[in-house]
Amino acid sequence: MEKGVRIYGELALISGSGNPELARSISAALKVPLLDVQITVFPNENIFIQLQQSVRSKDVFIIQPTCSPVNYNVMELLIMIDTVRRASAGRITAVVPFYAYARSDKKDKPRVPITAKLIADMIGVAGADRFLTMDLHAGQIQGFFNIPCDEVTAFPLLTRYFILKKIPNLVVVAADLGFAKKARNFALALGAPVAFAEKRRNGPETEYLGIIGDVKGKDVILVDD
Amino acid sequence: MEKGVRIYGELALISGSGNPELARSISAALKVPLLDVQITVFPNENIFIQLQQSVRSKDVFIIQPTCSPVNYNVMELLIMIDTVRRASAGRITAVVPFYAYARSDKKDKPRVPITAKLIADMIGVAGADRFLTMDLHAGQIQGFFNIPCDEVTAFPLLTRYFILKKIPNLVVVAADLGFAKKARNFALALGAPVAFAEKRRNGPETEYLGIIGDVKGKDVILVDD
Amino acid sequence: MEKGVRIYGELALISGSGNPELARSISAALKVPLLDVQITVFPNENIFIQLQQSVRSKDVFIIQPTCSPVNYNVMELLIMIDTVRRASAGRITAVVPFYAYARSDKKDKPRVPITAKLIADMIGVAGADRFLTMDLHAGQIQGFFNIPCDEVTAFPLLTRYFILKKIPNLVVVAADLGFAKKARNFALALGAPVAFAEKRRNGPETEYLGIIGDVKGKDVILVDD
Amino acid sequence: MEKGVRIYGELALISGSGNPELARSISAALKVPLLDVQITVFPNENIFIQLQQSVRSKDVFIIQPTCSPVNYNVMELLIMIDTVRRASAGRITAVVPFYAYARSDKKDKPRVPITAKLIADMIGVAGADRFLTMDLHAGQIQGFFNIPCDEVTAFPLLTRYFILKKIPNLVVVAADLGFAKKARNFALALGAPVAFAEKRRNGPETEYLGIIGDVKGKDVILVDD
Amino acid sequence: MEKGVRIYGELALISGSGNPELARSISAALKVPLLDVQITVFPNENIFIQLQQSVRSKDVFIIQPTCSPVNYNVMELLIMIDTVRRASAGRITAVVPFYAYARSDKKDKPRVPITAKLIADMIGVAGADRFLTMDLHAGQIQGFFNIPCDEVTAFPLLTRYFILKKIPNLVVVAADLGFAKKARNFALALGAPVAFAEKRRNGPETEYLGIIGDVKGKDVILVDD
Amino acid sequence: MEKGVRIYGELALISGSGNPELARSISAALKVPLLDVQITVFPNENIFIQLQQSVRSKDVFIIQPTCSPVNYNVMELLIMIDTVRRASAGRITAVVPFYAYARSDKKDKPRVPITAKLIADMIGVAGADRFLTMDLHAGQIQGFFNIPCDEVTAFPLLTRYFILKKIPNLVVVAADLGFAKKARNFALALGAPVAFAEKRRNGPETEYLGIIGDVKGKDVILVDD
Repeated sequence: MEKGVRIYGELALISGSGNPELARSISAALKVPLLDVQITVFPNENIFIQLQQSVRSKDVFIIQPTCSPVNYNVMELLIMIDTVRRASAGRITAVVPFYAYARSDKKDKPRVPITAKLIADMIGVAGADRFLTMDLHAGQIQGFFNIPCDEVTAFPLLTRYFILKKIPNLVVVAADLGFAKKARNFALALGAPVAFAEKRRNGPETEYLGIIGDVKGKDVILVDD
Repeated sequence: MEKGVRIYGELALISGSGNPELARSISAALKVPLLDVQITVFPNENIFIQLQQSVRSKDVFIIQPTCSPVNYNVMELLIMIDTVRRASAGRITAVVPFYAYARSDKKDKPRVPITAKLIADMIGVAGADRFLTMDLHAGQIQGFFNIPCDEVTAFPLLTRYFILKKIPNLVVVAADLGFAKKARNFALALGAPVAFAEKRRNGPETEYLGIIGDVKGKDVILVDD
Repeated sequence: MEKGVRIYGELALISGSGNPELARSISAALKVPLLDVQITVFPNENIFIQLQQSVRSKDVFIIQPTCSPVNYNVMELLIMIDTVRRASAGRITAVVPFYAYARSDKKDKPRVPITAKLIADMIGVAGADRFLTMDLHAGQIQGFFNIPCDEVTAFPLLTRYFILKKIPNLVVVAADLGFAKKARNFALALGAPVAFAEKRRNGPETEYLGIIGDVKGKDVILVDD
Repeated sequence: MEKGVRIYGELALISGSGNPELARSISAALKVPLLDVQITVFPNENIFIQLQQSVRSKDVFIIQPTCSPVNYNVMELLIMIDTVRRASAGRITAVVPFYAYARSDKKDKPRVPITAKLIADMIGVAGADRFLTMDLHAGQIQGFFNIPCDEVTAFPLLTRYFILKKIPNLVVVAADLGFAKKARNFALALGAPVAFAEKRRNGPETEYLGIIGDVKGKDVILVDD
Repeated sequence: MEKGVRIYGELALISGSGNPELARSISAALKVPLLDVQITVFPNENIFIQLQQSVRSKDVFIIQPTCSPVNYNVMELLIMIDTVRRASAGRITAVVPFYAYARSDKKDKPRVPITAKLIADMIGVAGADRFLTMDLHAGQIQGFFNIPCDEVTAFPLLTRYFILKKIPNLVVVAADLGFAKKARNFALALGAPVAFAEKRRNGPETEYLGIIGDVKGKDVILVDD
Repeated sequence: MEKGVRIYGELALISGSGNPELARSISAALKVPLLDVQITVFPNENIFIQLQQSVRSKDVFIIQPTCSPVNYNVMELLIMIDTVRRASAGRITAVVPFYAYARSDKKDKPRVPITAKLIADMIGVAGADRFLTMDLHAGQIQGFFNIPCDEVTAFPLLTRYFILKKIPNLVVVAADLGFAKKARNFALALGAPVAFAEKRRNGPETEYLGIIGDVKGKDVILVDD
């Protein structure tokens, strides 16, 4: 926050079950302790959450990637937002580095859902004020949110990593034409040529059609979603 | 619908994975076939739904109790509602005979969620126009819904069953004082005395405190939630 | 607020006509004066409110139990919230120790309203950010609110009062089986036995069916809603 | 409805307590019976409503002017809309010929409410789909509604009445400069001159400043709100 | 803000293309610089906006009268609000001294829009928290906003200007009976007589019907919208 | 609509100023006349719309591509939806074959708007029930709408056109790597090879980086957005 003004109350970090280690790293880096939260799963599979400390007026960040088990983690995230909101937090930011259902972002067939939008709506309705994520499958998913959405990217970290490796004979390959642009940008940053794999998806099945560009005998960095 | 007027378009029944047998029974009783729906769970655990037939302008009933696996079934219900809504259905009724998270219906401790309200909001936001359920844990849950909510009860079926059994030495026992009234009404209907078990819950633990009323040597019908 | 941070601006107290004496007591206890508010009822029965001081950016608490005259007080509460919101208050908390229409909290008959939910919605729509109440008829009413809702209870005050009285021959009686649990908890706190009155309501009429438990010759504390 | 198509289900008329006689006249004119509704006011002043017949899928018109007792009638209207909505009506039209709080339609002083907007919001939130009223204090109030709003006017009825009376020496006087245009239109329709009374309102007090135009010895029709 | 408390973060001023000179005057008067904003209009007429500085947590005021080119300026205002909201501003106030479409504020004919309400809704949906305007065509437009709306008036500035001019033979004329009251108030403040022009509008055409009051040989101040 | 059931009332077609010829073609193809609509632009640039015929209960389709003049046409579309909604239409479908601002669909730079989402929200808030468009810039834009959105595509028409032309020496070139997949699908349908142009956009400027694939001496079909 600019100039040391703290307009949303004291910072508070809460970790869901998604990736507690990540949450502990963030907590350590920020030197802000994680709040005590008791997460219980009853024998009837119902998730129950109780915050052990007050979040009244605080600026709460809930860290919960929606990784496996996906549906459990989505529900836990939503219940946690509801808990924090009803406890009169000052502001709630959902920090979801991995966004499940991100591929279900358009109706490319008739009579299918747009689940990535549904999840965005549910996060807003549960009570989040802001959303923070990382390298979305498609940038348009930001527009699914009515609340402000910040997307950070691992792009600079990844390029630096490969540049330092000094791999001599590199080619960047897009695993699907949908990432052609992403792969090209990555290749430009590495000073490497780019190639494209062509595939077609049929439900859960995928058919590979070939590769455009020269990959023979090269070290390949594959860009996938 | 009164007088044969069909104002919401043709009836359409869809079954989720919750209880396909129940859906088939309803379909058979109504002589209305179940719609073909393809439900896929990808290796990344994402649920994907595609309706195989049009629901455009139809009066769609989605039959999906949120029984075990609870969080999966809740998510599947929401995604199915989204699918049907985006396919331009005329009206959508979510039929959820078993309502998960119904016990999480009040803040009886500080800093806990009201998940039963959260689920109600999500069903509305996903796009259901009406909600149909059965014997809610607390009648107030109807008020959690902004959409009309109809609650049917198995009370007459159950009382008739026990009356026909002609059990001579019967007592109706409420497993918890929270169901004292329900147990009393049941006992009145059966012409039997009523008794009350006292218990206290601590998180997932429960402590029994005793029984008020005479149950010694009697056949007990236990009323629980 | 923790650590003296005031994130919602200066505290401001406003009293409606519901219970000005209560508002004055709160004001005296907090050492925060009540804002000047001019409440006019025109000959056409329309309520008109004008705040005599600015509430711009302030953390406003409106104290208005919806006691008799009930419908007048509900309308005055809503109009007052609208007034304060349009005057650009920073945050608005409706303090409603007595919540009218609380018994109308479920559809226990066909084609009846859930007025307790309607009132909750109207308080939210008028512009309250938070709701503060006391000993609700049913805890689930908290879930009727989309805004955070805090419920305080007179339970500790009441138990202390009776414990200090040292009444020797006490029994706690639930006036209705719906309060069986509340009465039991009260009895436990007082170290007294509990009994239950059975009644049935028919519209405005009530039929008493008897008492379960021993009350003969005892001093009775009646737990009613 | 054009061409006899009935797309909202069968017509149903319901009367509140506001003006049952008006409702009976409408019912007689349309040859559609009024639905049986049981309206109870409990000793605690709570209004309770139960519809005695189904409105499922029907095209319901609720007739309830918000005349005296104003706040009671507003609350009864809202509760009735909630009742009808939760009973799964097909469409709900609130028919409110007299609209209370219509003068409270702007912030002409600092820190006052816009109650006419608040009422419009509450009617929408309670669940009305459409609003029907008559000769609003200001046409802009239609814009307060998010739902479609139809305003009918008694203007043609009133002008015909006075034209048939053939009053020889007529002048139309606006009781306030705010109705100058309305009075002028009325005078034009009657072929009579127009005059304007000047007044200023101070809270409930009104100060008259004089009359612009010639009224001496004439028969006056006063146009007021 | 009272007492120097800054609860919404640092002030930030942004100017749209509507009236940059006005924005610069406000900036100079407040001694707060205007934020750098890059507004691009692509060859396909799409407006694109990029803020060159952070507005995170700031109390942002967007200065954009919706003057000519009207539809461009309305769209630019909405896009600018969206930009600022998605950049996580603390609070957003739309400052719109001239409000386009203000005359389209009621359905005085069948089947016409209420565009002034539509604009108000769009400003709210785009993400403004508060609205600031000047001398609205009708005060009721304030009620079209769900967000707080402050209306300032040039009335004292204008009256002082004419009082200092000491024009001897003055009359204030309402250009339309709809402004009769406004003209009268202006005349009272100037100690001058008032007169009224009568006109009727037919779509874009206007027919003048005459003047009520004495204007012959006088200096006229015309009050129009 | 399946089986001739008309559940939304009679069909009604309305054309905005965007592309009246297209509207007339649709009207002729459907043998449904266009409704008379009077669109006036006042000297103050305000758009005013009046429907000349009733749309009460009708199933209204508004045909308005948001082509040049873009901002005018967007505003006209929104005002037309508002007009139709307030005239109590049964259902409103906005038919927008060309969707302006579609490229502004993600925050690929900090502090930019997502105007494609803003437009989607405004169409919903103005009152459309359904949205119909064609070949969106990105399929995800469908997810920006809360109302059902149908996207039709010219893909089969275009491929048939080129197949019938029997161009011997064809290559399909994506004008930007973002359309790599679209171009590939088009090439597959035509049995032609595919190539990719690499470009980078900087605000309104574009820098071309080269072409991947063989285009020398071939007839090129360029796939652009």
